[in-house]
Parts: sequence; C-alpha cells; structure tokens
Amino acid sequence: MELVLDRAPQLETEQIPLDRCLGRVLAADVSSPIDVPSFAKSSMDGYAVVSSEVAGASQSSPVVLTVVGVLSPGTVTDRPAGPGKCFEIGTGAAIPPGADCVVMVERTSRSGEAVSVFAGVKAGDNVVPSASDVERGDVVLKKGTHMGPRHIGVLAAVGQAYVSVAKRPVVALASCGPELVSVGDQLGPGMIYDINSSALKAALAEDGCSVVDLGVTGDDIDELNRAILAGAKQADMVIVSGGSSLGSSDLVTEVLTRSGRLLLHGVAVKPGKPLVIGEVEGKLFVGLPGNPLSALSSYYLFIQPVVRKALGTRPPGNRKVEAILAEDLSSVPDRFEFLPVRLEEGLDTVKAYPSRKGSSAISEMASSDGYVEIPTAIVALPRGMQVEVHLY
Amino acid sequence: MELVLDRAPQLETEQIPLDRCLGRVLAADVSSPIDVPSFAKSSMDGYAVVSSEVAGASQSSPVVLTVVGVLSPGTVTDRPAGPGKCFEIGTGAAIPPGADCVVMVERTSRSGEAVSVFAGVKAGDNVVPSASDVERGDVVLKKGTHMGPRHIGVLAAVGQAYVSVAKRPVVALASCGPELVSVGDQLGPGMIYDINSSALKAALAEDGCSVVDLGVTGDDIDELNRAILAGAKQADMVIVSGGSSLGSSDLVTEVLTRSGRLLLHGVAVKPGKPLVIGEVEGKLFVGLPGNPLSALSSYYLFIQPVVRKALGTRPPGNRKVEAILAEDLSSVPDRFEFLPVRLEEGLDTVKAYPSRKGSSAISEMASSDGYVEIPTAIVALPRGMQVEVHLY
Repeated sequence: MELVLDRAPQLETEQIPLDRCLGRVLAADVSSPIDVPSFAKSSMDGYAVVSSEVAGASQSSPVVLTVVGVLSPGTVTDRPAGPGKCFEIGTGAAIPPGADCVVMVERTSRSGEAVSVFAGVKAGDNVVPSASDVERGDVVLKKGTHMGPRHIGVLAAVGQAYVSVAKRPVVALASCGPELVSVGDQLGPGMIYDINSSALKAALAEDGCSVVDLGVTGDDIDELNRAILAGAKQADMVIVSGGSSLGSSDLVTEVLTRSGRLLLHGVAVKPGKPLVIGEVEGKLFVGLPGNPLSALSSYYLFIQPVVRKALGTRPPGNRKVEAILAEDLSSVPDRFEFLPVRLEEGLDTVKAYPSRKGSSAISEMASSDGYVEIPTAIVALPRGMQVEVHLY
Repeated sequence: MELVLDRAPQLETEQIPLDRCLGRVLAADVSSPIDVPSFAKSSMDGYAVVSSEVAGASQSSPVVLTVVGVLSPGTVTDRPAGPGKCFEIGTGAAIPPGADCVVMVERTSRSGEAVSVFAGVKAGDNVVPSASDVERGDVVLKKGTHMGPRHIGVLAAVGQAYVSVAKRPVVALASCGPELVSVGDQLGPGMIYDINSSALKAALAEDGCSVVDLGVTGDDIDELNRAILAGAKQADMVIVSGGSSLGSSDLVTEVLTRSGRLLLHGVAVKPGKPLVIGEVEGKLFVGLPGNPLSALSSYYLFIQPVVRKALGTRPPGNRKVEAILAEDLSSVPDRFEFLPVRLEEGLDTVKAYPSRKGSSAISEMASSDGYVEIPTAIVALPRGMQVEVHLY
C-alpha cells in the first residue's frame, strides 16, 4: 500500500461550472462571499411590527395597526414600520426598516387597512436574522469534498457559479493476453473476451478518472512495451491487467525491468496474488491479475485508494453492511482473502452466502453483492457469525 | 406514495454500447450466447496428458512422455495428446484433443523434449470444463440490474457489445419564487440564490434522469403555467420546487387546478409539509417545498422511488449505517420527521449528532452526513440509543 500511495499522482486543479460538479472533488475550501440570509427575513406569514407597540396586546385588548404595504418574498421597501404602521409580510420576505418582529397571521384579525393584533411578540420573534445561517467568510465546504446534490446546493446558496476542483486523474489502461478478443469481435477457438478493459474502465469512471484506452496487447513484449510507454506519456498512472502471472510468460515485469522500475511482484492476497507495482516514466504502474474477479478486487484494494489520495477525498459514504454468515467457511491460512458473498435480506437479519466457484467465475461476478475480508491468520469462520460485507 | 408510484412513467428502451452502460438499468434479462469458458482449459501451468497414461506415476517410478508442442493461452491445436505424447500448457490455454487432465509443472522434470511425470493425475484434474461457469442460454443478468463495473464485466464476458437499457426518464424542473436569482446573476436586496435547481438537477442526474431545465419562474401565474405545460410536453415528469406554500401565494395548486389535476396538497412529514402531487398533460407532477433541505429530503422520499420504479430497478446498494445518538432529542408528535445528523466515527461506534438549525440551514446541508427517520408516534429519542442513519 505504501508503494502505491507514495506514488499517487499530483493533480492540477480546474474551474468548472456548478452544474458539472456532481461527483467531482473540491480542490480548495469554499468560503462564502455573502451572508446567508443576506437580510433579516420573516419565518412566518403575518405582520412585521415594532415589538414595543404590541407589547401589551391580548385577545381582550388588541392593538390596532395600519397596514401600509405588503411584503412578499423578493420585495423590499425603504418605508419604515411604526409608529402605528406595519406591513403584511410573507414567509421569506425581508423585514422592513423599523420592524423587529413578526406577529403570526393566526394571532391577528384584518379589516381593510386595519389589523388587530391579539398577542404580544418580542423583538426577534419569527425573524431569521441576517447571517444567522452562514457568515460572509465562513468556510461552507472543505477541500476534498466529494460533491453530491446537497454540496451542490450549498455552493448554489453562496452563489458559486464556478468551482475549483481536482482535475480527473488520467489513467492509461491495457489488457494483456494473446487469448483476449475485444468485445464485439469474433471469438475464435481458445480465445476469451477481454473482460477487464470494460470492467476496469467502468470502475475508473465511477471513481472520477479519465481513461486512455490502450486496448488489448498480445504476447509480443515490444508491443506491450510501446503501449506502456505511450500510456505513461499521456497519463498520470498506467494499469495493465494480465501478463503478470508468476509463470513463464511474465511480460509485464520484463517491460518494467527494461523501461521502468519494478518495485514489487506478488502479494499475499487471495484472489490477486500476481500483483505488480512499478514506475514507468516517473508514473505509477500497477499490473493487475488477468483473472477478472481478481483484477476487480485488486482494483478496489490498490487502485481506488490511490485515486482517492490523488483527488484528496474520502469515499462518498460508508458502503458496508452487517450480515450473518449462512454457511461455515474455510479460508487459506497464508493469504489475506476476499470472499465474494451474495446477500439475502431476512426478517431481522441479512444473510451472507459465500460464493463457491472461485475467482474465475463470471456467474459469481454477476450474483455476488459484496465481499468479506478475511485476515491472513483466520482459517475458518462458523455459520451464524456476524460479518461485515463491503458492498461492490 | 401510491399517488406518485401509480403514475411512474413508462419508459422506452434503447440499445447503447457497453462502454456507456455504467449506472444504466437493464431493460431485459441478458442470456449468454456462448458457453463460458467456450472450451476446456487448463487451470495450471504444466502438461496436458492422458490420465490413463500417467495413472501409476510416482517419484520413484516416473512416466516419461514426449512433449510435442506448447499451448499457451489463445493457441489451439488439432494434434492429439497420447499415446506417449503430451503438450506443455499454460494456465488458461485450451486442452488439446485426447488429453483429459493437466499435471502441474511442479510434479514434473523436463529434459529436452522428454518430460518425467512424478505423480498420477485423474481425468479432469486441473481442467476447467467448457461451460462450467456459464452455459449458453443462461441468464447472466436480470432485467432491472443497475449496472456497476462488475455487471459490465459480466456483459463483456459473454460478448455483449450493445446492451438494451431503459431510456433515461426525462424530468422537467422549475424553481418558483419571485425572490429567486439564478446562480451567477447579481443578488439584489431581499433576494436569494436559486438553490433547488442545482441540487435537484444533481440528484436527478445521480438517479439516472435527463433534466429539462425550465429555470426560475417568479410570481406570475401565467408564466408558471406556460413553463409547466411546456415541461409536461417534453418530459416524462414535471417537478416544481417552491410556490406551493399553504399560505396566500399558492401558485402551483392554482396552475394544477387550471391546467391539470390536483391530487394532493400537504403531507404529515417534517420537513416537507407543503408537498403537491398532481397530473399535467397526463404526466406526473410533483410540487416540492421551496426550502432547500425540505426539497431535497422530499425528493429522496417521493421522487427517487418513482424514478427507480420507472427504471425498474432497486438502489445500487444499501446506504445505511448504525449509529449511536450523541444527544437527547425531541420530535414533533404529529408528523413523520427526517432529522439530519452529522456522523463521527469513534473507536467502536459511530456517533450521530443531530442538527440544531432546522430545515432552512445551508450550514446544516453542508455538514450533515445523512438523516434519521422518526415515525409520527415517536416524540423523544434518548442519547445513547442506536439509530439507523440513511446516508445522503
């Protein structure tokens, strides 16, 4: 993790319009240039009055005032309230000069331009003071905020038409394997579709990256070398899936040794053992397993954190649920394991059904809802145990 | 809920390329046109042999075979294995004719074209049979699947270059209020920025909708009427925030009465009381409160479910966390309440701090992480109580 996180790309910032901010990450704290509200306003429908003039009002001895105007939201007046004068006012409208409170319409009775007030109100009653929500200069959103609808609402509230965000990390992505066929092409004998390009492109997009698609490379080391160097020049990070088995055709480590720097090959994680970490042209290089489920879980373990570090953000929310293991299960003793599970909601509990097919199964990829992390030292988990499921 | 859900738009379907499927919803079950794998393949690096020929092999009496070829992933041969002949084979490569198992390279010793096999293997050992993962015709993904990276991987695995998805619901959106100024324009006295257009547009985009932006309308009923009718003609659904207070300037219900059908005005929910449900031009109309936090929580309560029903999907994952209330709190007795809370992670527990500012606060919108639902009958929740927080 240190090897990858220490090499997280440094991203520039850019200004983008507010309506394109969904899912982007703030590059700087946002301070409000205005008070919110920028004026004292009524929180009720009623009458804006001078509190001292209605202090003794009651049902039996109302105070009668003259209504000299109507203030609805968006209208303002420079005419003052008092003495003896008040304004009809709607919720959200600016309090007129001189008035210091609002008497609710329910406590009044109207007859032409005269209004009888049946209850005393104190200064400040039913008034939202200026700057009571946000003061000019207040930081309303912090650098690193991953923007959802409510954050975009906050930016609108303080009038930010343009927002400074971290540029999207540019990630060059290749799939390596002579057996791979691009989806849409004809599948010959002994060949399989390139699954990782599509799945990893979607995962990178979901995490806010732009992808430079280097396509599928076969077993020609020069072809792979050219693709990786071209990717490193255009991108902040290079990812290749496949070509990094611990067996004979280990193209990825050869390219790194030739054209970059090999930092690590192999991790004690199941699935996802044949991981490669390195550098090419000073950029982070990660070689993921060719196996699709392994590639995707290694993505979530090693790439997503580096993307988030580069963007300077945390995940947009907790994506874990507690569940009860529906079956006994065993785990390998010497590796950190990711166990895909399918969730079924019961009456009080959620049950987690472990997958049985192993890391190559497409059907498992389709049906699992998340995974349980099993630390290296754990070799068995009993049925009925409470586990934390990380949702995909 | 019935009033809105019964009026969920009927969406057409469209074919889109696989690489644009992220976040879209499958309009039909996807059956695999191929077996996966489409050929028997090796799960190990080793030698593809005929099991009967190596049945008695052991460390002390190895069976010696002739290696007649190398099979790496993507290569196939029509030459058969046996008698006395075998193939070197890599993980993922197709099993040659005649061979029925693979002996791991660790159990062999190689010398030129001769390989000594030191262990017996059974038919099927280290072989992934054809169609063992997915059989041709199997449904791999169900209608209604909200597609994430792993689903896109599954579609790639079965070669789906184009996918049938539900069209994005088209939603016409207006903000109503004479006090509203579009973000980017000059904020005059007594005016506030239009927050809801930005926040609701983002929420609709996040939920997979296209938005027809009708902009800000003031307090002219004809202007609002024209905007709503224009929106209903272009869109599957119309949403207006503001203009539906229970007070005097109730433009939205007037327009519905004039040009459509008013079905409901006001719900026992806090915040979010002034909700309007109706129909215009046969399309669902929802009037949301003008207050931004109320508008957004009413969106999640009433609009999001209708969008999901139209798309035919469930949410992409559980977005709730358990937390411990950090403070005593009281709730109104006669309304269903949404209480925004801020979460703080402690050692073992997550603490939920209730918001104090009420539904108009922008600062609360910025700092809250989610909300607690408080049923109508509950009037107090004690500090230390476990609550379920719905994350924004």
